[in-house]
Amino acid sequence: MNIIENGGVTSAKGYKASGIYAAIKETESKKFDVGVIYSEVPAAAACVYTTNKVKGAPIAVTKNNLAKSGNIAKAIIVNSGNANTCNSNGEEIANKTCEILAENLGIDSSEVIIASTGVIGQKMSIDPFQKAIPKLVENLSEDGGLALATAIMTTDTVKKEIAVSFEVGGVTCTIGGAAKGSGMINPNMATNLNFITTDCKISAEMLQKALNETVKVTLNCLWVDGDTSTNDMACLMANGVAENEEITSIGRDYNIFKLALTKVMENLTKMLAKDGEGATKLLQCFCENAPDLDTALIVAKSVISSPLVKTAMFGSDANWGRILCAIGYAKAEFDITKVDVKIISKAGEIAVCEKGYGIDFSEEKAKIILTEDEIVIRVNLNSGEISGSAYGCDLTYDYVQINGDYRS
Amino acid sequence: MNIIENGGVTSAKGYKASGIYAAIKETESKKFDVGVIYSEVPAAAACVYTTNKVKGAPIAVTKNNLAKSGNIAKAIIVNSGNANTCNSNGEEIANKTCEILAENLGIDSSEVIIASTGVIGQKMSIDPFQKAIPKLVENLSEDGGLALATAIMTTDTVKKEIAVSFEVGGVTCTIGGAAKGSGMINPNMATNLNFITTDCKISAEMLQKALNETVKVTLNCLWVDGDTSTNDMACLMANGVAENEEITSIGRDYNIFKLALTKVMENLTKMLAKDGEGATKLLQCFCENAPDLDTALIVAKSVISSPLVKTAMFGSDANWGRILCAIGYAKAEFDITKVDVKIISKAGEIAVCEKGYGIDFSEEKAKIILTEDEIVIRVNLNSGEISGSAYGCDLTYDYVQINGDYRS
Repeated sequence: MNIIENGGVTSAKGYKASGIYAAIKETESKKFDVGVIYSEVPAAAACVYTTNKVKGAPIAVTKNNLAKSGNIAKAIIVNSGNANTCNSNGEEIANKTCEILAENLGIDSSEVIIASTGVIGQKMSIDPFQKAIPKLVENLSEDGGLALATAIMTTDTVKKEIAVSFEVGGVTCTIGGAAKGSGMINPNMATNLNFITTDCKISAEMLQKALNETVKVTLNCLWVDGDTSTNDMACLMANGVAENEEITSIGRDYNIFKLALTKVMENLTKMLAKDGEGATKLLQCFCENAPDLDTALIVAKSVISSPLVKTAMFGSDANWGRILCAIGYAKAEFDITKVDVKIISKAGEIAVCEKGYGIDFSEEKAKIILTEDEIVIRVNLNSGEISGSAYGCDLTYDYVQINGDYRS
Repeated sequence: MNIIENGGVTSAKGYKASGIYAAIKETESKKFDVGVIYSEVPAAAACVYTTNKVKGAPIAVTKNNLAKSGNIAKAIIVNSGNANTCNSNGEEIANKTCEILAENLGIDSSEVIIASTGVIGQKMSIDPFQKAIPKLVENLSEDGGLALATAIMTTDTVKKEIAVSFEVGGVTCTIGGAAKGSGMINPNMATNLNFITTDCKISAEMLQKALNETVKVTLNCLWVDGDTSTNDMACLMANGVAENEEITSIGRDYNIFKLALTKVMENLTKMLAKDGEGATKLLQCFCENAPDLDTALIVAKSVISSPLVKTAMFGSDANWGRILCAIGYAKAEFDITKVDVKIISKAGEIAVCEKGYGIDFSEEKAKIILTEDEIVIRVNLNSGEISGSAYGCDLTYDYVQINGDYRS
């Protein structure tokens, strides 16, 4: 498996993309705010959606479209600047947007996936879409991945893209993805916006299975602030243009595909965590020797989501008692008196707790380790053989600043 | 029922208290850091404890003592500055502390309740207790409630005390309480430190029942940062000195007692919320017309615990979409398309959402309402007749500052 330099959603064969400033929300920067991904060849599509009871109108429309098309999609349209959520005419606007795009591409509107992100409960107009879509279609290009990744950004400070290539039955396939998300992040059976494209030939059923399994150990292990968004969506298209023998069952090829997908989604997850609103540090909690995967993930997520751990990491303070506290209130069964904790970064590693009790360590060394911008908290449960990670970031003044005044 | 001016843990008959600076943690302010409550008459005792798997040594020792004494207690000793948690000799120190106090009071050490709060995982010495206890016993006084309330403070900025009087069968009884807590607050079947005393005669069984029922709708509805502490404890002593006819079953007297207890604990809960680390505002989410109490409390707590709602309130921003988002991810069953939301303060009230959709409102008026320091978010589920509240505070720069550098 190889990582493709500057790879993204147009790295796989048969995909084009574009982005444009359509003034969905007037901004001085005129940052792109609508983007399109297009596959000329019909692609199998798999999606997971937010579990929030309040759902953005685009989610209902996408579900409906994919039900009609039998999980086949040719295009994705996405905007930032307005979530199109809690608007009484939200579905009407989203349906109309799909129709306009379909008309311009000469496809059926049920083959369009639609997503929105931005402020909840702001009225939305069809006008900017009406004006922008012909231009978006005109601009579609095999180098358009970057424009798409830009168009989906909100409070994100960096673009989040990656692509990898891998071999299935002697044929080179590619998976690439783009993601957005910075705040309102506690994906739950779904995630913020993630668009992943592959040219691998794989059945819709296997595609959905691979997405579900991968989301569980990547995006669903991400935590910025505990707010599960109303517009979360991860969407995976497979157009089969690589012409490998179709993957239709579990086996060697499926495992290779899933490994590549995990690589892409794990990287997007880390990018999302590192760019969490106001973040200065990427935090990973690696929980090892758990009795099962759920226990490992629950413990890891409990640590990564603790505001007291997050602020301590911001302050480069090896306040391991807070880590143990968060392990202790994790809703899982294990023996707390077997737990060891280490803190690790590029600058070294330090053991802070053994068998549930504090041990002497050099505060000076801890400070040096914690001053790095990527920190791993390694929790050994000593109660089994399974491991898993959760990803997050520190909690800083800037998180408060960004969210104390988001709408204006 | 009357609120007693400047009331606290020594307002009920037969209780004395004291506090002292024992240098548990050396501080410039020499703030009191050990306190004692004493009832000469044996008191029925009810406690609830943290559900965190990591438990402070004082919790194990208290449980053990009350088991030995048959839920009878005469004294409480509590220190701030060190949580005595994750220390390999923690129970030994806590037991020894109880023994020294018991010796000085001439009681059995199983009649002592012990609690600690402060940094987790710091070694603790018996020396400061050895030195302080004789003085604490000497200083015990019927006006000692304030000294006790001071001794239990950590990052608290204000003392938290209240007392009410009420009549049972023509006899005046009193309940008073003191609490501490500012950060690491997400009580779960227990709470931070709360000490409540009453002279009401009530059986141990009824006392525990009243405490459990009241904690559910008061302290367990409190959220500052989502971290369930390792040392949470709420403790209620009833010495019967008021000489009312003993309450031994559910009925009119039990209900009067519970109403008074609820008044005390609801007030302490609000004081804790308002003094949440870094807080500038008390937030209450009142969820009405729910199908049942659990649904009301789950929805209210979901809103109050959302970092995005908390930061919006800090910024006086009527970003109601975030409120609806938090209602939407609450783990309860109800129809989101029936939900109305209003925001209320001393300065007025404003409707922001009806039947799940945004409605036009004056941003100017909303700003005036939100600039107040006590905000009520009123959520009407329109799905039943039960209501409940959760309490919290805004999320501010100061929360990050306090916790980025707590240990030093």
